[in-house]
Amino acid sequence: MIINNVNNNKDLKKLNYEEKKELANEIREYLIETISKTGGHLASNLGVVELTIALESVFNLPKDKIIWDVGHQSYVHKIINGRREKIKKIRQFGHISGFPKTKESDTDCFNTGHSSTSISAALGMAIARDLKKEDYNIVSVIGDGALTGGMALEALNHVGSIKKKMIIILNDNEMSISKNISGMNELLTKLRLKKKYRKSNNKLKKIINAIPIIGQYLTYIIKKLKKTLKQLFIPGMYFEEIGLKYIGPIDGHNIEELETIFRKAKNIDEPVLIHVVTKKGKGYKFAEETPEKYHGVSPFNINTGVVSSSTKTYSSVFGDKLCELAKNNKNIVAITAAMKDGTGLSKFSEMYKERFYDVGIAEQHALTLAAGIAKDGMIPVVSIYSSFYQRGYDQVIHDICTQNLHVVMCVDRAGCVGSDGETHQGLFDLSFFRIIPNIVILAPKNFEELELMLEYAIKINKPVVIRYPRGGEKGKILPSSPIKYAKAEVLKKGKDISIIAIGNMVSRAIDVATILEKKNIKCDVINMRFLKPLDEVTIINSIKKTKNVITIEDNTIIGGLSSSIKELIVNNNLNNIKIKSYAYPDKFIEHGKVDELEKKYKLDLQSIVDDIKKEVNHE
Amino acid sequence: MIINNVNNNKDLKKLNYEEKKELANEIREYLIETISKTGGHLASNLGVVELTIALESVFNLPKDKIIWDVGHQSYVHKIINGRREKIKKIRQFGHISGFPKTKESDTDCFNTGHSSTSISAALGMAIARDLKKEDYNIVSVIGDGALTGGMALEALNHVGSIKKKMIIILNDNEMSISKNISGMNELLTKLRLKKKYRKSNNKLKKIINAIPIIGQYLTYIIKKLKKTLKQLFIPGMYFEEIGLKYIGPIDGHNIEELETIFRKAKNIDEPVLIHVVTKKGKGYKFAEETPEKYHGVSPFNINTGVVSSSTKTYSSVFGDKLCELAKNNKNIVAITAAMKDGTGLSKFSEMYKERFYDVGIAEQHALTLAAGIAKDGMIPVVSIYSSFYQRGYDQVIHDICTQNLHVVMCVDRAGCVGSDGETHQGLFDLSFFRIIPNIVILAPKNFEELELMLEYAIKINKPVVIRYPRGGEKGKILPSSPIKYAKAEVLKKGKDISIIAIGNMVSRAIDVATILEKKNIKCDVINMRFLKPLDEVTIINSIKKTKNVITIEDNTIIGGLSSSIKELIVNNNLNNIKIKSYAYPDKFIEHGKVDELEKKYKLDLQSIVDDIKKEVNHE
Repeated sequence: MIINNVNNNKDLKKLNYEEKKELANEIREYLIETISKTGGHLASNLGVVELTIALESVFNLPKDKIIWDVGHQSYVHKIINGRREKIKKIRQFGHISGFPKTKESDTDCFNTGHSSTSISAALGMAIARDLKKEDYNIVSVIGDGALTGGMALEALNHVGSIKKKMIIILNDNEMSISKNISGMNELLTKLRLKKKYRKSNNKLKKIINAIPIIGQYLTYIIKKLKKTLKQLFIPGMYFEEIGLKYIGPIDGHNIEELETIFRKAKNIDEPVLIHVVTKKGKGYKFAEETPEKYHGVSPFNINTGVVSSSTKTYSSVFGDKLCELAKNNKNIVAITAAMKDGTGLSKFSEMYKERFYDVGIAEQHALTLAAGIAKDGMIPVVSIYSSFYQRGYDQVIHDICTQNLHVVMCVDRAGCVGSDGETHQGLFDLSFFRIIPNIVILAPKNFEELELMLEYAIKINKPVVIRYPRGGEKGKILPSSPIKYAKAEVLKKGKDISIIAIGNMVSRAIDVATILEKKNIKCDVINMRFLKPLDEVTIINSIKKTKNVITIEDNTIIGGLSSSIKELIVNNNLNNIKIKSYAYPDKFIEHGKVDELEKKYKLDLQSIVDDIKKEVNHE
Repeated sequence: MIINNVNNNKDLKKLNYEEKKELANEIREYLIETISKTGGHLASNLGVVELTIALESVFNLPKDKIIWDVGHQSYVHKIINGRREKIKKIRQFGHISGFPKTKESDTDCFNTGHSSTSISAALGMAIARDLKKEDYNIVSVIGDGALTGGMALEALNHVGSIKKKMIIILNDNEMSISKNISGMNELLTKLRLKKKYRKSNNKLKKIINAIPIIGQYLTYIIKKLKKTLKQLFIPGMYFEEIGLKYIGPIDGHNIEELETIFRKAKNIDEPVLIHVVTKKGKGYKFAEETPEKYHGVSPFNINTGVVSSSTKTYSSVFGDKLCELAKNNKNIVAITAAMKDGTGLSKFSEMYKERFYDVGIAEQHALTLAAGIAKDGMIPVVSIYSSFYQRGYDQVIHDICTQNLHVVMCVDRAGCVGSDGETHQGLFDLSFFRIIPNIVILAPKNFEELELMLEYAIKINKPVVIRYPRGGEKGKILPSSPIKYAKAEVLKKGKDISIIAIGNMVSRAIDVATILEKKNIKCDVINMRFLKPLDEVTIINSIKKTKNVITIEDNTIIGGLSSSIKELIVNNNLNNIKIKSYAYPDKFIEHGKVDELEKKYKLDLQSIVDDIKKEVNHE
């Protein structure tokens, strides 16, 4: 096996093309086998096997820098660079990440996770390199989906104008996570067809050579052929127009061709964009056929392609409920940003095609688009993952909330997301939304409450956030009373401790209370429902009674539920109150199973109960 | 005077072209005269006089919708639509805003303020219109600078792919606020020259017609002429390629030509981009010559063009100090996003041309560019206005802070900015930065402290925020002790009240303490300096002593200094503490002079002192 002899990118350089082809096959098999057990990003990695081999044959890491945009396609790179065995535990607690991490290896030069950052980062490095008068190559590898993200386009404009030596590899697999729908995509489609145009070019020459030539007639011909000529000259023209050298399209599965081009590009002293066409899922039949399904995949059966069947999730409950509501309310419009499947909107997109918009990787646009839709009287429901709302923060403040527009903002993957790790944790949203005026913030304790909240959010004429976690319900499934504006729900009554929780942590609160009851400690359990506006009366009454408060939330300790309750205590001069807050600490939280991370950060049932008992015994 | 008979856009429709030309002159004179007294956005409004007249002659507001991107060029629109007299008090407290506001008039259909939002909003409206099966026109007017903003490009891509009927007016005045430097700009420059190309096209035809024609030779000619042909076909090609009809370039000061094109565009059932070339500052010699100077201008002398000389500001102090530091530290690189003059970086850009990057309106790119620069060992200092950091929030979290990179983020225009109003208030930054792990947050009490903090920030190897207000120092100018990590500065010692303040509110704290002293109330005055990490020891010691706390900050009440102190009190079981927080309330704060707004929101010296005396008398 060649793969066993490749321990870093230097080892690649000893192989000939035949061996590299064989290595590609071995890596593919290894990926399929490994990810079928661990789960992870399969399709995108299968697509870049040859591309990664060719890149790392030509460039010398860590001296040269390769920045993997988004970064979920960096498994091949990790296999090549010392992490072949470690891949077997990728994304697991205490093991290597599913994304590039500078702390894992000096061949990972820049952490990525969110889309469309790599061109900016690469240009920054090029600026630093030139100021330091050093000499190395900087390569950004970016997908066609990521290229529609606004910041990538901002970066391209800048690259074109300041002309630093750097290489942008456009990894064009004809889709982002969901199918990529955009004007840019049309442009790329035309580029992809370039080779056909080249052929017609030759044909054209023959035609022209054969025509009986008269000056007047030539003018006519040129006019007639204008369209064809246009096509002749278009490939890469956009990129060349904004100041980049364009090379392509290149077959992204031909190692020799790729290496030849990369070697050429190395010698060009200005920015080059190399357009490489790859096939997502390449080499695994099932992934080639439905690459979305194998984008971020759970463990699956290699022979049948069957993925461990996913149970009901918050996302699917949201999607189903929205379909139901949309049936009777023709004003509902659903919007997402390249997360159609992930947010549970696939069914909606089929049932209500004319009321569904997937804008591609473009969160900023998605949110202001929603503002425009709301302004003219429809009800937009936007579903985006928590960590990607960070990309549209200004749009939420400036376009939606200053105008107090009725946009329903569903925040999927809120709280701890688990194995995607620090870049994808949704641990900030309660905090960054809470400081915005006019906004209403809701979080459901279970599926049923999500349905009630969605129905409620469609009705109130304000900007509304509903945040819920990745995956399914946890703990006890409690029935829900109707939602009332700014009203918490009291689930248990007791005299000793007020346990105040929000969202999926409400079931934990109930479990804590149940255990404490056995120790004869009686708790109020308050399901906040609304982080904003806060149900101050319910909280204050409970606190005055118990003088003992516990808050539990799936969010950072700063600025969310814990902060709200503390502010309330001080603002109301409540004295001699004991309070203990359970939340994630003020640091970036690594990857691992949610259970494992909760345990590490003392948010699991046992840790909370032990902690409370210790306090009680101290008294 | 024609202007006196124009009270809404319907009145325009009664005028002939001669009268409209005359009206344009009258509006120009009126603008120059009015803004010379009030201050405000002059150059951009002078540039769109004819464009606005032509648009509002063809379209019927409020049925048709015109969205003014950024919105500082909406004065002419306001004059035409019922606010001619009101313009005399524009941007003043209690009077009309300098930006479109739906609450001012139904002809203002969408609030703007930040750049690059109008295409998204217009497309949203077009979607709503079509779903409601209504029939009206939607026009977005966007400058060439705003078009480089990522979200505008995201929106263009989407417009091109879903082909809703709408009109985008590209108001090309060959610059954004500072000179526009980008690849997109190069593209536009070529478009502008299109008419010349048309001429060369004719010339080309003649040449071709005159050549002795042989087939082989033709192929050669075509090859030779490839470059010329390219230019022939390029105009608008980018826009057409991504799916928009392109018309232009049009002379933006020829009302008749503009109206003709707009009438044509009205009848096209798909998205149209009309490229209009205007001259910023048109009709006022001084503004034509240096439009940046008259972009957002203070009152000036009409005859001499002399602007009320600006005194020293936080921005200029920052700029000067950075130049000084850059002299001895070759690693410092300065970055801004179309705010070179506003952030005080003009001098730096001249002195250290090779270490200065103005990326245009592209905050996201600016921040990840900085991350890249920091990753490869230089020290980027980014200066952006507070409200525009909202655009780069994910980049601060995901690219800078997860990697704990040494990027110095200067937050200019932090706190209440005054007459630009709600879209431009910098009242959220303390709160939204505080929740980010790894970040250090500083705010200086005066110019001298800004210098010290900048010098300090360059040295510590962490992401650092320094936030300071628009304009100059206020109140007492106190000397500063050296900056120490996470250490507050105690400026006064007393036993009765702990006054804790940050940034420019420290001088207010001193003033409050001085007045209270006369009433024999002795105060600790603590200049926080660091909002994060918080100097807990100093605060707790003071609070334990006084049991009476006052916090003062130029920020929203949620999530900033006030919240930090309250959390600290509760976390440390400090009981029977009286606390009063002075900050802006949880709402969007309107325009007006800072003094007036402080008075309204009870943050001025007198209000605070009265409030404290009232409390004291109550006891």
